[in-house]
Amino acid sequence: MLRTLMRAKGWDAVVVTGSDPHCSEYPAERWKQVEWLSGFTGEAGDLVVTLDHAGLWTDTRYFIQAEQQLAGTGIALHKMRVPEQVPIPDWLRQQFGDDALIAVDGLCTGAGFAQSLPGTVLSVPDLLDRFWADRPAIPQTPIFTVDPGETRREKISWLRAFLREQDCDGILLTALDEIAWLLNVRASDIEYNPLVISYLLVTRSEVCWYVVKEKVEDPQTRATFSILEADGVRLHPYSDIDYLPSEFQGRLFVDAASLNYQLYSTLASDGVALEEGTSPVGLRKAVKNAREIAGMREAHLQDGIAMERYLYWLEKSVAAGRGITEWDAAVKLGQLRGDREGYLGDSFETISAYGPGAALPHYITPHNYAPVIRDEGLYLCDSGGQYTCGTTDITRTVPMGRLSALEREDYTLVLKGHIALAMAVFPEGTPGCRLDVLARAPLWRSKRNFGHGTGHGVGWFLGVHEGPHDIRQNLNPVPFEPGMVVSDEPGIYREGKHGVRHENLLLCVEAGVSEFGRWLAFEPLTLCHFETDALDLSLLDRAEIDWLNAYHERVRQALSPHLPGEIADWLRDKTRPV
Amino acid sequence: MLRTLMRAKGWDAVVVTGSDPHCSEYPAERWKQVEWLSGFTGEAGDLVVTLDHAGLWTDTRYFIQAEQQLAGTGIALHKMRVPEQVPIPDWLRQQFGDDALIAVDGLCTGAGFAQSLPGTVLSVPDLLDRFWADRPAIPQTPIFTVDPGETRREKISWLRAFLREQDCDGILLTALDEIAWLLNVRASDIEYNPLVISYLLVTRSEVCWYVVKEKVEDPQTRATFSILEADGVRLHPYSDIDYLPSEFQGRLFVDAASLNYQLYSTLASDGVALEEGTSPVGLRKAVKNAREIAGMREAHLQDGIAMERYLYWLEKSVAAGRGITEWDAAVKLGQLRGDREGYLGDSFETISAYGPGAALPHYITPHNYAPVIRDEGLYLCDSGGQYTCGTTDITRTVPMGRLSALEREDYTLVLKGHIALAMAVFPEGTPGCRLDVLARAPLWRSKRNFGHGTGHGVGWFLGVHEGPHDIRQNLNPVPFEPGMVVSDEPGIYREGKHGVRHENLLLCVEAGVSEFGRWLAFEPLTLCHFETDALDLSLLDRAEIDWLNAYHERVRQALSPHLPGEIADWLRDKTRPV
Repeated sequence: MLRTLMRAKGWDAVVVTGSDPHCSEYPAERWKQVEWLSGFTGEAGDLVVTLDHAGLWTDTRYFIQAEQQLAGTGIALHKMRVPEQVPIPDWLRQQFGDDALIAVDGLCTGAGFAQSLPGTVLSVPDLLDRFWADRPAIPQTPIFTVDPGETRREKISWLRAFLREQDCDGILLTALDEIAWLLNVRASDIEYNPLVISYLLVTRSEVCWYVVKEKVEDPQTRATFSILEADGVRLHPYSDIDYLPSEFQGRLFVDAASLNYQLYSTLASDGVALEEGTSPVGLRKAVKNAREIAGMREAHLQDGIAMERYLYWLEKSVAAGRGITEWDAAVKLGQLRGDREGYLGDSFETISAYGPGAALPHYITPHNYAPVIRDEGLYLCDSGGQYTCGTTDITRTVPMGRLSALEREDYTLVLKGHIALAMAVFPEGTPGCRLDVLARAPLWRSKRNFGHGTGHGVGWFLGVHEGPHDIRQNLNPVPFEPGMVVSDEPGIYREGKHGVRHENLLLCVEAGVSEFGRWLAFEPLTLCHFETDALDLSLLDRAEIDWLNAYHERVRQALSPHLPGEIADWLRDKTRPV
Repeated sequence: MLRTLMRAKGWDAVVVTGSDPHCSEYPAERWKQVEWLSGFTGEAGDLVVTLDHAGLWTDTRYFIQAEQQLAGTGIALHKMRVPEQVPIPDWLRQQFGDDALIAVDGLCTGAGFAQSLPGTVLSVPDLLDRFWADRPAIPQTPIFTVDPGETRREKISWLRAFLREQDCDGILLTALDEIAWLLNVRASDIEYNPLVISYLLVTRSEVCWYVVKEKVEDPQTRATFSILEADGVRLHPYSDIDYLPSEFQGRLFVDAASLNYQLYSTLASDGVALEEGTSPVGLRKAVKNAREIAGMREAHLQDGIAMERYLYWLEKSVAAGRGITEWDAAVKLGQLRGDREGYLGDSFETISAYGPGAALPHYITPHNYAPVIRDEGLYLCDSGGQYTCGTTDITRTVPMGRLSALEREDYTLVLKGHIALAMAVFPEGTPGCRLDVLARAPLWRSKRNFGHGTGHGVGWFLGVHEGPHDIRQNLNPVPFEPGMVVSDEPGIYREGKHGVRHENLLLCVEAGVSEFGRWLAFEPLTLCHFETDALDLSLLDRAEIDWLNAYHERVRQALSPHLPGEIADWLRDKTRPV
């Protein structure tokens, strides 16, 4: 059907990205157009359809999953984050030179990406609507306010100071987490992400929030709107963003990283003077204030309690031969988190993977016929919670019984990598890409590696992935600052065998001053034991063992008072010094 | 005088860089205009003179030296490679906005740098000539050919293939080491650098070498010219490069990193179609072929013999209380290198620094009143040779007697850093900036650091510093390839106390393939022992001790057969396993 339309319109290619009008990493159901077209459910994938080819572009994390899900669709897999990668713009140039007519749904295509495409790029809003009969509506969940220790008035003042500095008359925030941060509001418009689908314009005198509000009859949302209006926020229907280009006067600051191509094109063609740059909200949001840090600590205490109860239950249940499946285990973990104070839901879909399943870094646990967790080998669980006081993300790999020598070695080497990064002391100004090798060198020594990043930023009761900092191979120059939160999650994956990943969240903290400058370090936020039984202790050096014992002491002291006696006893045993 | 000229011409600022018409790191005497104007002799420094300010911009390596040499000149020090740095273009913008009229000697100013300056940039060739009565002439030392295992005809064919790929009609090589590499020629036009001052144009049908040849009456140069002419190289006077802009037809590939602003401006204003990019010669030259690698090994064998004879002489002489000065020591080392086969001279000025002098990473040993090396504390010697078969660069720090606890700790931690990098195994595609932290983490743990890069590329009988790869904090994305040579030289410097640096040259080699990809590693080229007596062994882990013992075994086996009996015995003792 799409190709019939393409022929009728004379389009050489249609590019469909896995994003929404806000360039979100995780779009709501309405914008899962890649999944709808191809059946691929990975979190990162873009489709290109030409008259004689259909291809899905995704990265190392999803190769195995994509091969399985694309089997029989006629859609080819194009691999990214490999040395021989051919990104979509280069591939299109190879196919068509610079003369192609390429159609995109401009609403769901980032302005920067669209501009990188060769030839003429035509923006067709809601391009797939004519085929997608039961396309879901824009979500509109109740909106509520949060108190992160800094008022929206303070944040707006700070943003206006930025506007004056940049000599701009307004800034258009399009990234959903930046809007939620600035206005101190949350909702559940996107699964796992407490966000509100909206746009925000802040000018020197006005704050205009374009938000789906027409049909909301929810009292909480109404109360929220009143609070915001009292703070000077003017409410506009979401779709009224279409009028912005003709109504705005002056210089407008925009961040092309989260601006969709449709809006960008209209702004540009309506002659709005655009100042393109990186929104200052991202960096400010990444540096947590004292209250946010206290909240993150509380969230990790709650999460640690749930995790230890879970790991206790899992160990006993599997040992008792109760036939627990990966799915049962994930459900149980959700229930145990559900008992914790402030828990609102998961921060992403739990990965509950036994044996070979764990070799897929982003395995999806099947609801039906999920594998049973047996009493040998390794089980991997990557999960996290959204608490009103903070966001968590933790991975533990658990020995369910006898381990092979290779499983034990992989378990130990990944922990060495995890600890090396957690122990790092580094001078101010150091970006994460310079620290990445610390987590990898222990693996590299025996020619092992992992294909994903080592660490991502984590929001305060916001997205579980946030920038601008990270720890990975890409040469991202953003330096660490005290107050930033980052994950530390090296791994080893052996297709058909097993997967190991150890993940804590780390808080960047001050570490003093020496004659060589000012120093920073990390402090683990996550509270949950590692499995010393799975270690080959001969591979750990003294400093690593000291770190592990000190961490276990902290975990035990923090969690024991909140655990039932038998679990506290079990945890004392698990955290015994080695 | 300069300011009188500036007032007469209406110039707001004059910018004088420490470079020559080829953007060389080390210019010949004729182009040491920064030294002539300011008295500062560091290898990296640029001057800005305005009507009411004169400033020198240099980096961490030269802060102490610059403060000493600028004292009383009225020239202010502007620090680079520090977080608060204000580079020259930014500083000029702060002073004058975008309206300044800035004069530069366009011949001695890189095109890229000149274009980064604000306002109008006026190129005044040989601007300082009117003041600089006894300015040295362009050097013209004998030119000879070398045989690196690949003919100039082969290299020219390869470069022409590049031209076809780039759809260009010619490429102008301006970097002196690229020209020497392509033509397989050497000379001594620049101290320590076996280069020929010249330009080279390679078109699809011609090779034109612009070289100072008018007055050369040297038979070796004449023979070289005949050989090159037989290979189709046409010779032109050096100054005829001025006619290139009007004579060249078609698209010309240039590399702005080594193209001077005067030539760039003339090419651009004469309407030559310029294709700007990175010259492919740099990367090709950095990857040594089998013959070059064999030559580098031979050069390091010769250099190791000289070094061990030197260290033996030094230890005995100082112990005997002969009042050896830093200068005497450097002279002795030069003599011992002079005895070695193929030695043509040093690859840079020897740093021979005792005690506090070694705290200056680029200390200049004074000829007169040089400090005496006493029988306690640390002595640092950084030196290298140009051999016809290769180039060397080595630093050893030597305990001359009793060491303080801090000296011992610094010595050991720097060696830990050195070994960690030397032992690295890493996947193909890894750039040096990602490995840099390996050499620093052992220092960072106790909040120590060093302000210079960890490693630089080294030429084959060419410059001791060459790109495009390096190992440093800057995010240089060029990945390592087998055949690249790089230094490994972490350090710790304590002003007024002591300095420690340990430097070997490393060769990048293949390290096999695993299920996780293709792997690379390093192999030390340098052959010379470290001082195990100076180590705090409790700070080294097993793997580090194993590396050190294996390296010492290799050093002993390679060098002993070439050393007199008593020195071989002494070396056996020095290289005894710890």
